[in-house]
Amino acid sequence: MKEDLTQKNMQGGNNLTVEIIAIGGYEEVGKNMTAIKVDDEVIILDMGIHLDRISIHEDTDIDRMHSLDLIERGVIPDDTLMKDVDGKVKAIIFSHGHLDHIGAVAKLAHRYDAPIIATPYTISLIERTIKGERKFEVDNPLHSLNPGSKVKLSENVVLEFVQSTHSIPQAVFPVLHTPDGIIVYALDFKFDNHQKISPPPDYDRLRELGKKGVLSLIVETTNATQYDEVKTYSEKVAKTILEDLMKDPLAEKKGMLITTFSSHIERLQTISDIAKESHREIMFLGRSMERFCGIAQSLGILKLPKNAQVIGGPKMVNKALMLAEDNREEYLLVTTGHQGETDALLPRIASGRTPFSIRQGDNVIISAPIIPNPTNAANRHIMEKKLISNGARLYSNAHVSGHAGREDHRDFIRMLKPKHIIPAHGNLEMLVAYGELAEEEGYRIGNNVHILRNGQAQVFNKGIDTY
Amino acid sequence: MKEDLTQKNMQGGNNLTVEIIAIGGYEEVGKNMTAIKVDDEVIILDMGIHLDRISIHEDTDIDRMHSLDLIERGVIPDDTLMKDVDGKVKAIIFSHGHLDHIGAVAKLAHRYDAPIIATPYTISLIERTIKGERKFEVDNPLHSLNPGSKVKLSENVVLEFVQSTHSIPQAVFPVLHTPDGIIVYALDFKFDNHQKISPPPDYDRLRELGKKGVLSLIVETTNATQYDEVKTYSEKVAKTILEDLMKDPLAEKKGMLITTFSSHIERLQTISDIAKESHREIMFLGRSMERFCGIAQSLGILKLPKNAQVIGGPKMVNKALMLAEDNREEYLLVTTGHQGETDALLPRIASGRTPFSIRQGDNVIISAPIIPNPTNAANRHIMEKKLISNGARLYSNAHVSGHAGREDHRDFIRMLKPKHIIPAHGNLEMLVAYGELAEEEGYRIGNNVHILRNGQAQVFNKGIDTY
Amino acid sequence: MKEDLTQKNMQGGNNLTVEIIAIGGYEEVGKNMTAIKVDDEVIILDMGIHLDRISIHEDTDIDRMHSLDLIERGVIPDDTLMKDVDGKVKAIIFSHGHLDHIGAVAKLAHRYDAPIIATPYTISLIERTIKGERKFEVDNPLHSLNPGSKVKLSENVVLEFVQSTHSIPQAVFPVLHTPDGIIVYALDFKFDNHQKISPPPDYDRLRELGKKGVLSLIVETTNATQYDEVKTYSEKVAKTILEDLMKDPLAEKKGMLITTFSSHIERLQTISDIAKESHREIMFLGRSMERFCGIAQSLGILKLPKNAQVIGGPKMVNKALMLAEDNREEYLLVTTGHQGETDALLPRIASGRTPFSIRQGDNVIISAPIIPNPTNAANRHIMEKKLISNGARLYSNAHVSGHAGREDHRDFIRMLKPKHIIPAHGNLEMLVAYGELAEEEGYRIGNNVHILRNGQAQVFNKGIDTY
Amino acid sequence: MKEDLTQKNMQGGNNLTVEIIAIGGYEEVGKNMTAIKVDDEVIILDMGIHLDRISIHEDTDIDRMHSLDLIERGVIPDDTLMKDVDGKVKAIIFSHGHLDHIGAVAKLAHRYDAPIIATPYTISLIERTIKGERKFEVDNPLHSLNPGSKVKLSENVVLEFVQSTHSIPQAVFPVLHTPDGIIVYALDFKFDNHQKISPPPDYDRLRELGKKGVLSLIVETTNATQYDEVKTYSEKVAKTILEDLMKDPLAEKKGMLITTFSSHIERLQTISDIAKESHREIMFLGRSMERFCGIAQSLGILKLPKNAQVIGGPKMVNKALMLAEDNREEYLLVTTGHQGETDALLPRIASGRTPFSIRQGDNVIISAPIIPNPTNAANRHIMEKKLISNGARLYSNAHVSGHAGREDHRDFIRMLKPKHIIPAHGNLEMLVAYGELAEEEGYRIGNNVHILRNGQAQVFNKGIDTY
Repeated sequence: MKEDLTQKNMQGGNNLTVEIIAIGGYEEVGKNMTAIKVDDEVIILDMGIHLDRISIHEDTDIDRMHSLDLIERGVIPDDTLMKDVDGKVKAIIFSHGHLDHIGAVAKLAHRYDAPIIATPYTISLIERTIKGERKFEVDNPLHSLNPGSKVKLSENVVLEFVQSTHSIPQAVFPVLHTPDGIIVYALDFKFDNHQKISPPPDYDRLRELGKKGVLSLIVETTNATQYDEVKTYSEKVAKTILEDLMKDPLAEKKGMLITTFSSHIERLQTISDIAKESHREIMFLGRSMERFCGIAQSLGILKLPKNAQVIGGPKMVNKALMLAEDNREEYLLVTTGHQGETDALLPRIASGRTPFSIRQGDNVIISAPIIPNPTNAANRHIMEKKLISNGARLYSNAHVSGHAGREDHRDFIRMLKPKHIIPAHGNLEMLVAYGELAEEEGYRIGNNVHILRNGQAQVFNKGIDTY
Repeated sequence: MKEDLTQKNMQGGNNLTVEIIAIGGYEEVGKNMTAIKVDDEVIILDMGIHLDRISIHEDTDIDRMHSLDLIERGVIPDDTLMKDVDGKVKAIIFSHGHLDHIGAVAKLAHRYDAPIIATPYTISLIERTIKGERKFEVDNPLHSLNPGSKVKLSENVVLEFVQSTHSIPQAVFPVLHTPDGIIVYALDFKFDNHQKISPPPDYDRLRELGKKGVLSLIVETTNATQYDEVKTYSEKVAKTILEDLMKDPLAEKKGMLITTFSSHIERLQTISDIAKESHREIMFLGRSMERFCGIAQSLGILKLPKNAQVIGGPKMVNKALMLAEDNREEYLLVTTGHQGETDALLPRIASGRTPFSIRQGDNVIISAPIIPNPTNAANRHIMEKKLISNGARLYSNAHVSGHAGREDHRDFIRMLKPKHIIPAHGNLEMLVAYGELAEEEGYRIGNNVHILRNGQAQVFNKGIDTY
Repeated sequence: MKEDLTQKNMQGGNNLTVEIIAIGGYEEVGKNMTAIKVDDEVIILDMGIHLDRISIHEDTDIDRMHSLDLIERGVIPDDTLMKDVDGKVKAIIFSHGHLDHIGAVAKLAHRYDAPIIATPYTISLIERTIKGERKFEVDNPLHSLNPGSKVKLSENVVLEFVQSTHSIPQAVFPVLHTPDGIIVYALDFKFDNHQKISPPPDYDRLRELGKKGVLSLIVETTNATQYDEVKTYSEKVAKTILEDLMKDPLAEKKGMLITTFSSHIERLQTISDIAKESHREIMFLGRSMERFCGIAQSLGILKLPKNAQVIGGPKMVNKALMLAEDNREEYLLVTTGHQGETDALLPRIASGRTPFSIRQGDNVIISAPIIPNPTNAANRHIMEKKLISNGARLYSNAHVSGHAGREDHRDFIRMLKPKHIIPAHGNLEMLVAYGELAEEEGYRIGNNVHILRNGQAQVFNKGIDTY
Repeated sequence: MKEDLTQKNMQGGNNLTVEIIAIGGYEEVGKNMTAIKVDDEVIILDMGIHLDRISIHEDTDIDRMHSLDLIERGVIPDDTLMKDVDGKVKAIIFSHGHLDHIGAVAKLAHRYDAPIIATPYTISLIERTIKGERKFEVDNPLHSLNPGSKVKLSENVVLEFVQSTHSIPQAVFPVLHTPDGIIVYALDFKFDNHQKISPPPDYDRLRELGKKGVLSLIVETTNATQYDEVKTYSEKVAKTILEDLMKDPLAEKKGMLITTFSSHIERLQTISDIAKESHREIMFLGRSMERFCGIAQSLGILKLPKNAQVIGGPKMVNKALMLAEDNREEYLLVTTGHQGETDALLPRIASGRTPFSIRQGDNVIISAPIIPNPTNAANRHIMEKKLISNGARLYSNAHVSGHAGREDHRDFIRMLKPKHIIPAHGNLEMLVAYGELAEEEGYRIGNNVHILRNGQAQVFNKGIDTY
């Protein structure tokens, strides 16, 4: 027990106990999973994987491995502690469709007799993940909920999806309304007022929630240690940068390739919109490109010109590359492989392992940062060296972050005025960097900012009025 | 003598000798000065100061000190070597109005019986510098030349000002047409197609020059070591960032201050345009703010709303601050002091040495990077700590560079196709980083990329056809 | 309240309550102060200052300022919370004589009716500090206690000084024996088995304490974020380095200066021992050199050759420098000013503000790191530039740390096997880096590793058996 | 042609032309090769490989590939330019036995009708390399020359091996005495006065050479950019560190492994000497361990205790590991794999791919830095993570550099007083960092410090008197 010398005694007027249980993502960037217990009802938020661990245990075959093995390797959240939680799981909610949020769904969801709830695009991605699973049968009911909508989850809990923005479509803030106050789950978000696909975050609703009384905010901390970054730049900035960057190369009689996150539909839309002004046909190539773009297209989220193609199957990709090899000035190839991952498309092109070879003067744009990790740094370095030694002109890092900056977080806190804050989605250094920011806003680590480790829980046993 | 084993003999068809003499700025970022000798006629380009040296010798009083003392302290270029140059100085040309290009004009220009030529805005700044001088009489004739215009300097040399863009208005590429080929002087520039005040660089003319035959390119290297930066972002990006950043603070009932480079009229115009939409009156405060804005306004370059004020005199500044102290929500204060320089306005406000005090919730935007140097880092750190401890909310580093990135340089080389390249405006590390970029474009350091030290010269004694 | 899901209930068999109150040094490197309350008896450990804050508030005059002003400026610990602590202060204990541990004694000690206890060298330094005070009368009794000795402080508490090593003589681990278990206070230490002046740490006693039962370890974290440093190098390494470094310069007919921490008597002894083999006379120059060396000499700790001089008064220093100016090859000047602090001796020499001027070929050894802080970086940069431009040959950073490395900390934990750990003496990033190390040793942040903020307390209300 | 304005005309009195031809190692750390032409006689120095290029082209099989393929991949020096050099190769000299100096001998030496000359240890390593070659027959005569000895190479050139120190036994400075002056080749060296195996560098001889007249110094630049490192620490420092580090682990009943450079016989001797005091038997394991230690032992350079074993063959290594698995407290395993290279021994142990598994509490000391390169960083990171997750206690980076520091270089220049300096063994950034150091000593880049690119030559056509 830790207590501030000036802290007053807590007294409550409400009989419910709220408990926030950190399952995964509180010691790493990855494998996010949180459980929220309101009396004897439990809501689970996200079930993600930790990609870094796979680069350590390179023989990991996710689709075929058992949960317990993956837990031991640190690849998925250790939810075995849930057996000691005395309550009934009412719902499994997913905030958005990135792998560190949904990637473990096929390994863990079937253990809970509860429906899965997410926005339509996220639900589609979850369906695909469940289909790819080779080890477990997952048959939890899947429910779509649109941003801005609510649903009653149980006696005590109403779920609301508040519109957010991030680097994937239909990211939301899942908000739980409980008798003891509101709980806001904010993994992951940025404040972007200028996206084409997603409307701006619903600031008005956030301020309303703040007025109603937020018991606890659970919040991502990706950029909390980026002291030089103030407010995260809008995708509009990425668009201006890409326009300037792509203009001349699009007109050249050379090959042109772009790689970015397959799930970053907004960015892909921007690239497509810019390219549409040129004579080039766009081909989106690679398995994960097909997965994310295909679904986004079928839901009407991504709008491509008629002559655009989205190709995922290896043979079809090879055929497309063969075509592009001899008519390189007529295509814009949008590929997987921005981290230089050995088996992704761009690294294979760089190594000469495809029918398309880089030639002198070809342009390659990498619209993604190096995700900080020594393996990525090495893979990307090797890929870039190969591209350059084959004659490519390289434009790297035309990118803006998809995560809130420190000043965005400050604004967020001021809107929500939460009683308690639980930083999440990061290692300890990131959680405490956020904690210090919260202290600048009048909070105090150990009093109302709670740093949890995976497996620890924060209990609010006297509700919102008592603090 | 250094020679490549595969290098062919040089043979010439023209009798002129062209010599490029590095006087200053080839070992540091600052005190730029270059002389170009075409047979017995000499053209001087820029006469700047080196601000870093003043932070080492903190008792330096530029206005009152003699050239030789300033040369010894490394504050101005050592042009004493010019006495050994056998030729007649025909003109002193200034590329743009930054201090590292014009700051030594009042210390050095009077030694040469030659006119001063620059664009109108630069000429006005030079006039102000000459007026402030306390030691020397400078009475060289001052000639304005507009971007896009030419003037014959001598028997052999015609000067052309090619439109460029940078972080100050009316920056140009001075181009010398000589019988032996064209010499392009490119200190400093960026490729910005979206400035409000300055038209885009004249790419067509640059390509034409490339076709006519460029003997040598003398080129800045500020960002040559920034391997992560590709093409430098446009001011349009800064505008998008500042709009997002200023939007909420402009509406708050709190104080609001911005600091940026006084000479960065494009940025100041942007800030003014954004603020105009709000209810706040803009006051530009500080001596150097007044100098740069005043001239820019009088030349019709900077266009401010009617209720904007530009105030430089200390008493008037204090009066304005007194007014703002009690009505802080009604003003936007644009101040000097972005580096935290002890005697500039924002640091004085931060220290409580003015009638205006920072209060809880006031917003301070620093639209400038820390110019890398330990003294700036310390001053800025101290200023920021004080601002924050007084309750300010700080938005630092809302900025884009004013210098070409590595890929811009690559484009520039491809447009101009110079026979020889002389990297300038940097320390050795920067010059060779540029040299390596040139090697990627087919050049070779020691053959046709020449790394000079201050005081060295590069001679082309057989003209353009001979290489 | 935070709890691990698997944590067992705490149950106690002892009626005492132990409370560890973080007063200062838990959010910064500096102004250390901790209070330990055992039932209603309170022991205070250290009262230091925070030098960084003075570089922000440069007009701070410590000797003449009131405690409350200094507290507000963050210069000394905020002990005002002690008025809410329900207990009687029995003793004020100092671990060693560095300013961040004893510097606030003259501002705070008089508020407590309790004796001051420290090792003899530390007591002497405290006496000097109290004598220099201009604002308060401090008349607490001063008691010397030798390393390896014990004294009963109160009904419930026995104090033991366990031999430690650090970068100042007579540093100890103050250990409190209480009915509820042992509390070890380990600010600051390294494990150095090869010092000349100090015997090695008493590892046997530490292991014995571990067996008896350590309730809590309060431990410094200076190097906790230095992941590349394993075990901190011994001063024997510094000796080997300095021998190699000084050998040739000592023989040259040039000036020779060394600067290091005035309080680092072991290092000064090493320098003196090396120099003794040469023909040079040693002069220790500067006010703080005189304070630390003078006391160390009078206590027989520092043993200098007969012709060595220790000179502190400004006039005498100037006289000595005048002598050295014309006979520079005959002296070794050991000076203050390793951080480039404007008013210390070496920076003044570098600026030409003393009768001794640096000449071509003079040797300057800086046997100290830059203490990380932008102001130090700037001051040191300016000093080094001046020294070099005057012709000095500079040997910087011949130094080993005085603080335990990560692997030393691991050994320490294994020796003591404490029930609880409270990391201290650092900012949050450092405290949690230590916390993660403790987790590698089987502890858990939030369970038995407690991260405190200044003003927070950790309560062990059921004693040692209960965990 | 570049000329200093103040430079005097060169006039000569000697008819010989000396030309220094940069073949490899002037744009990278690796594949060192230099040719020196004295009139029509050519001396070749070193033929190394560039290991980094193999991590880019991971399918490179050196033993079986043709020189031209390896040249194209950048793995070995491009000596094809030698066909344009009008002269007769008289000798191929190797400075020491590291792979970046001798690794290409089997690919290139047979093209020259000239003997190979090196110290005995280096000759033995060259013999092994030639034996392993699968593509070419290399039958150049091999001549041993001891440190301190001379041999006449040709009409005009006498070779002398001056005693040096480095991180491999019998490293020398090859010195060429020519009619035009002395040429000193200083790749690679440190100034270490305390090695057990190698005597200190022959400073007296270096000073004598300086007095006789050194025309040119060709010098390594490995640490030229390490501004914080002054004089490189002696191996005596590594010994003190390792003693402190190994002391406790040697006594524990746990496994103990050390990895360091196989060629670093001095370090291996130190480790052996420390371990000998314990009860543990030492086993040196791994193919390259066997190569370097075996030869060093057979030449009487490395002196191991009787029960030490050196084992290289995979089966024997496995057998030894099997033995150690069950008696881990009785052995000290000295292994290859300090960079985490996937197929070296320690990484294989870490991955559980050998009969010996890491258990809780085993100690692993890595006595080597990460050689800076993204692939090494990734491999080492993965290996360390695996070791730790298996329970190992890791002591990384107990190491001192084998290369001269900036102040050592300064001393070296002062001893030799060369007329000209050619920095080598580094990328451009390193060469110019050395150049700037030389400028601090009165030289001038472009005048008498010559920065060469691979394939360029520096000609001294009027000999030593003319400068």
